[in-house]
Amino acid sequence: MDVNHYLELVRKNQPLVHHITNWVTIYDCAQVVKSFGASPVMAHAAEESADMALISSSLVLNIGTLTPELIESMNSAVLCANKRGIPVLLDVCGAGATGFRDRMCFKLIDETRIDIIKGNASEVARIAGADVRTKGVDSGDVSGDLVKIATGLAVERDCTVIITGKDDIITDGKKCITVSNGHELMSHVVGTGCMAASVAGTFAAVDPGNIVEASAAGLCCLGIAAELAVSLGNGPGSFKGFLFDAIYSLDRAHVDKMKRTGECAVTIL
Amino acid sequence: MDVNHYLELVRKNQPLVHHITNWVTIYDCAQVVKSFGASPVMAHAAEESADMALISSSLVLNIGTLTPELIESMNSAVLCANKRGIPVLLDVCGAGATGFRDRMCFKLIDETRIDIIKGNASEVARIAGADVRTKGVDSGDVSGDLVKIATGLAVERDCTVIITGKDDIITDGKKCITVSNGHELMSHVVGTGCMAASVAGTFAAVDPGNIVEASAAGLCCLGIAAELAVSLGNGPGSFKGFLFDAIYSLDRAHVDKMKRTGECAVTIL
Amino acid sequence: MDVNHYLELVRKNQPLVHHITNWVTIYDCAQVVKSFGASPVMAHAAEESADMALISSSLVLNIGTLTPELIESMNSAVLCANKRGIPVLLDVCGAGATGFRDRMCFKLIDETRIDIIKGNASEVARIAGADVRTKGVDSGDVSGDLVKIATGLAVERDCTVIITGKDDIITDGKKCITVSNGHELMSHVVGTGCMAASVAGTFAAVDPGNIVEASAAGLCCLGIAAELAVSLGNGPGSFKGFLFDAIYSLDRAHVDKMKRTGECAVTIL
Repeated sequence: MDVNHYLELVRKNQPLVHHITNWVTIYDCAQVVKSFGASPVMAHAAEESADMALISSSLVLNIGTLTPELIESMNSAVLCANKRGIPVLLDVCGAGATGFRDRMCFKLIDETRIDIIKGNASEVARIAGADVRTKGVDSGDVSGDLVKIATGLAVERDCTVIITGKDDIITDGKKCITVSNGHELMSHVVGTGCMAASVAGTFAAVDPGNIVEASAAGLCCLGIAAELAVSLGNGPGSFKGFLFDAIYSLDRAHVDKMKRTGECAVTIL
Repeated sequence: MDVNHYLELVRKNQPLVHHITNWVTIYDCAQVVKSFGASPVMAHAAEESADMALISSSLVLNIGTLTPELIESMNSAVLCANKRGIPVLLDVCGAGATGFRDRMCFKLIDETRIDIIKGNASEVARIAGADVRTKGVDSGDVSGDLVKIATGLAVERDCTVIITGKDDIITDGKKCITVSNGHELMSHVVGTGCMAASVAGTFAAVDPGNIVEASAAGLCCLGIAAELAVSLGNGPGSFKGFLFDAIYSLDRAHVDKMKRTGECAVTIL
Repeated sequence: MDVNHYLELVRKNQPLVHHITNWVTIYDCAQVVKSFGASPVMAHAAEESADMALISSSLVLNIGTLTPELIESMNSAVLCANKRGIPVLLDVCGAGATGFRDRMCFKLIDETRIDIIKGNASEVARIAGADVRTKGVDSGDVSGDLVKIATGLAVERDCTVIITGKDDIITDGKKCITVSNGHELMSHVVGTGCMAASVAGTFAAVDPGNIVEASAAGLCCLGIAAELAVSLGNGPGSFKGFLFDAIYSLDRAHVDKMKRTGECAVTIL
């Protein structure tokens, strides 16, 4: 996987990435996309979400602060995105915490085409059918092999599945890439999971035919930038500013030197 | 009051703190809770707010950007929280600025059990029945003894009252603690009041039987971290990052050396 | 134009600036106003937006994350503001991206009195009737003389028009001021356009009889602070914290030394 190739493609193509997302990390989702040189837009009214999808290169959905109105708006944006063939990513943020979130996720996945399902371990396990509990939006304990869970869901739903964590897992059921960049401090910063979704959606926009590699490249860049940011800062507050700085000036040399990616065997159950 | 005891309890128990809050400072409320090692969750849909309260250890309400829909959602979350006996804090943000805010606060306080009422001087004075004007969400002038106002409201409503300001006042009408940590710069940073509410709610979660001491300990930690942050930064912008850093690495030595708390006599009218 | 005069007036009068704005940059809009020493308030419920306008010194509207409910709320706030004669600024954020945004802007401009229309080049060109496309909320290409476009719209709508960009253009159709302060990095930071609107609205509040000069002075101060912030930081992340610091401590000497403003001839078509 040529991470630098994808980084340069994002900077050159500057894709417009449409978000219907949550109110907690909405700024960070926008800024992380912009720091990579792409154009974020956040438009959640049902009256315009499809029109915005019409001029965008990918669509990122996040159910962090979900309401029924947002689901309606997501639905019409996805239908437009599906027609145009642009990648749609769903961050199943908080799945496993309440029944409402689970139902709304299943509704979207059942009724429209979601190209990428992304979450932390317990969120994705819940969508894969496991009886797990998510602690709000923080991952709960998941027993079982995460690669198997991701692969199984990818095959079942014919999509790419991303589990973020210490090692990120990205698979479409045929190929499976792991990304080990990043830092433990990220789990103390609100929004790192949401930003990972925005980054995967941004990179998928520039190579919709190879979503696994493109989104893995994006997560690798984010993880490397996070490592650089941790080395400059002194905790979860100063980290965020340095993260955007590091993304903005990320270069080939850093990527080549620091990237820690791998492939792992896909086991279909 | 053993501030370090409470700080360690928060870090060990990592309570899930459910928020129904405003859109301006929602990120900061989440990050301040996370910086203390606890888990924030923000879920405002009426369809799930009670379910989220069901798995949480405390509930923080903030009317900064209130709508009638949020009040409905707050209502069902509080009813669930009341049944479970977890602490409910209401930040009466902007009370005294418009009639709508005043009415909605009274509605919540009259119809449900609010364990902690928190605001700045003019907000709390308004809820206590004074004819004062809040300047948007910034405190207006209040004549009268703030300790008396807080104590009177605490007795009237059988709850804990927190007035934040140069000296924070925390009282349940029987005991009254003052916290003099913090820094003048905080009044130039949007969100410090909202963060104080989240912190009080987080600390109350770990000792619901002693809300006065627990929430006072939280405000003391926040104030100490703010003093450390001011010494590192150069204004209201860099302050915020340093604040989260300082909370994240706050230790026993800093607390012991820097805490400025006191008790004051309670005067019932 | 005496920039320092206006800066001091804002700090002395501390106007309350009411916002009905978007969820992406709502914090930054509040903090930029507060960093200048004024009081921001964000209240979007239709039940109170007019009451908040009743105690405010100016009103800033931003359609970044527009919904029909927000338009209703904006409408009643503007009607109150119009009656009281306080300046109303409309940031036509994303005009030219979807038909919904265009229609809602025209509705507000046609049905109420908007004192200041503000946007980037393609947003303002769209409102002036040009057939341009905005890339989400980032400016698209605009052919034609921006001063002419701004002047034409100002005359047509009898208001002040602000086009932000490398050189900001501020005109009421009679007088036209340009502000060349600022830095290219600002285009990589989400929210700089929205903050410019909040700053123009804050400065207009202290001299409603001379909106062109007052808002130009505000944009000049913002641009100077941005230049100072760029010199301290290392990219779009650390920039933001330093920006608020620089605004907070901006002084006469910096303004006198760094301001780059001009007047340009007004050409009426």
